[in-house]
Amino acid sequence: MEIKLVSPFDAHLHLRDGDLLKTAAPISARAFAGAIAMPNLTPPIASLEAANAYKARILAHCGEPFELVAAIYLTPALAARDLEGVKIVKLYPIGVTTGAESGVTDIDRYDRLFGAMSDRGAILSVHGETNGEVLAREAQFAPIYENLAKRYPRLKIVMEHISSIALVNLLDRYENLFATITLHHLLYTLDDLLGGRLNPHLFCKPIVKTAADRGALRKLAFAAHPKVSFGSDSAPHLRAAKEGASGAAGVFSAPVLLPALAELFEAHSALGALQAFVSDNARRIYGVAPAEKIVTLIKRPTIVPDEIGGVVPLLAGETIAWSLA
Amino acid sequence: MEIKLVSPFDAHLHLRDGDLLKTAAPISARAFAGAIAMPNLTPPIASLEAANAYKARILAHCGEPFELVAAIYLTPALAARDLEGVKIVKLYPIGVTTGAESGVTDIDRYDRLFGAMSDRGAILSVHGETNGEVLAREAQFAPIYENLAKRYPRLKIVMEHISSIALVNLLDRYENLFATITLHHLLYTLDDLLGGRLNPHLFCKPIVKTAADRGALRKLAFAAHPKVSFGSDSAPHLRAAKEGASGAAGVFSAPVLLPALAELFEAHSALGALQAFVSDNARRIYGVAPAEKIVTLIKRPTIVPDEIGGVVPLLAGETIAWSLA
Repeated sequence: MEIKLVSPFDAHLHLRDGDLLKTAAPISARAFAGAIAMPNLTPPIASLEAANAYKARILAHCGEPFELVAAIYLTPALAARDLEGVKIVKLYPIGVTTGAESGVTDIDRYDRLFGAMSDRGAILSVHGETNGEVLAREAQFAPIYENLAKRYPRLKIVMEHISSIALVNLLDRYENLFATITLHHLLYTLDDLLGGRLNPHLFCKPIVKTAADRGALRKLAFAAHPKVSFGSDSAPHLRAAKEGASGAAGVFSAPVLLPALAELFEAHSALGALQAFVSDNARRIYGVAPAEKIVTLIKRPTIVPDEIGGVVPLLAGETIAWSLA
Repeated sequence: MEIKLVSPFDAHLHLRDGDLLKTAAPISARAFAGAIAMPNLTPPIASLEAANAYKARILAHCGEPFELVAAIYLTPALAARDLEGVKIVKLYPIGVTTGAESGVTDIDRYDRLFGAMSDRGAILSVHGETNGEVLAREAQFAPIYENLAKRYPRLKIVMEHISSIALVNLLDRYENLFATITLHHLLYTLDDLLGGRLNPHLFCKPIVKTAADRGALRKLAFAAHPKVSFGSDSAPHLRAAKEGASGAAGVFSAPVLLPALAELFEAHSALGALQAFVSDNARRIYGVAPAEKIVTLIKRPTIVPDEIGGVVPLLAGETIAWSLA
């Protein structure tokens, strides 16, 4: 048994830089036709120039054609005149996740910028969490999404890595709200992270939530809801940065994404939705057109390595029923 | 400035066995006049004979007089005839925490035992969590506490290490329900565990919860509510068992308990309640009478070591405003 996916696209990917980039880039380039590279490096990728240089560094390690969109980090310095050639601007409220130290405090300050983005058709990609109590942060951000959606009705706004029902409920209420969903938010709940033993390798922002939240996300994914793209939010951190007291947030899912999605979708009789979820929706929503790349999955077990380039991948040591051919 | 505490008592303490016991026992014996030693070893301390042998092993390492009550683990094998000389029986619903593999599945099976405990004045100490979703487990246990309290009105039931408002609300509703509260549930919320970076050294069962839950616990502690004893639930695990993928639940708070409590109570103008909270209430509730021991705290900084006997203590590397004299 096999599945042929046409041009899978990862709409939310962290590739880092330096040695981690060398590890991560070829893994994603092998399985996907393209990706949106997130800009939360240190310093952030905050201009088109920096984004183009970063794209070149990424592509140098991909080893095959890869359609890359490098998102621009929204810092207070970004102005309407900097938007020329920019496709995606990423908004991090200050301090909410890895590399969000340069983010935004007062969204109202960006009225001119968001207006100019609407005019140019640039997309606003948002890490939608407040600085409130950790499990409530995403739900507390819902009214902010609603305000943005109403105030800029022509601005395409992507609610990134949604993890809770509160945001699922917004999707059909505002024409200009879209979303990405990760593999790990489809697979896990808070109980997997800390219900038994503590598993630092499932620690990410936003935190995985309840079974009800996961159920709502699965419903969207298994129906390939047309406003939802697959975005892995795969984010490699060295083992030492994840374990012990350093406790960095992020899940390195890139090495297992398509096999694990196939296994999950198959288990829920949703394989028919996989192509739209991992590719067609993103191509339509983002207007990207990667060169056609057929990725074949076969029903043969993948044994996930314990570590890849010093990074513990998602499902380390476990077996997935599907493999990349 | 100094505080003299008369016979502090730790009503919920894990001392382990072997090398960990050698580390833990003298630390608690130095600061406290006595403690209730919890029985979740492997195999569990499930008979009076095992409890007496364990007490002897503990006392051999205490280095000074220490009034020990060793609780008996409630396994399906425990019968009414085994209660002779038993002061405290500890109920672990199966699988809910470290060493709960031998615990109880069906509380209704113990009707005769609980009846016999009522007759003898033995105390039922309970880890009150279900096997439900991790943050709801304690609240889901509330009706089980209510059933026990109603069915055995003469049985003293201690709700151990309460962490949520749901259980705080039961305390004044049932005459025979009591509680212990830990230091870490008074200090932390889920945000400290995983709101920023992940801190495995704050991972415990029950999980630390919201600011509202912590607020309700603080209100009880700062008023030295007469049905509440201080019980640290201090539980040493070697660093390697806490960090990385092994992720054991438990916080080693014993090395910092009284100084950290003094600092917290002082910050909330509640020092007047400290004596009752850390000693008088437990002596009355449990009917224990340790030899008088005056423990003096002075307003001089404690710098908490990074590691003690291979175990990372609570507040490792931090400074507390008070010290044991």
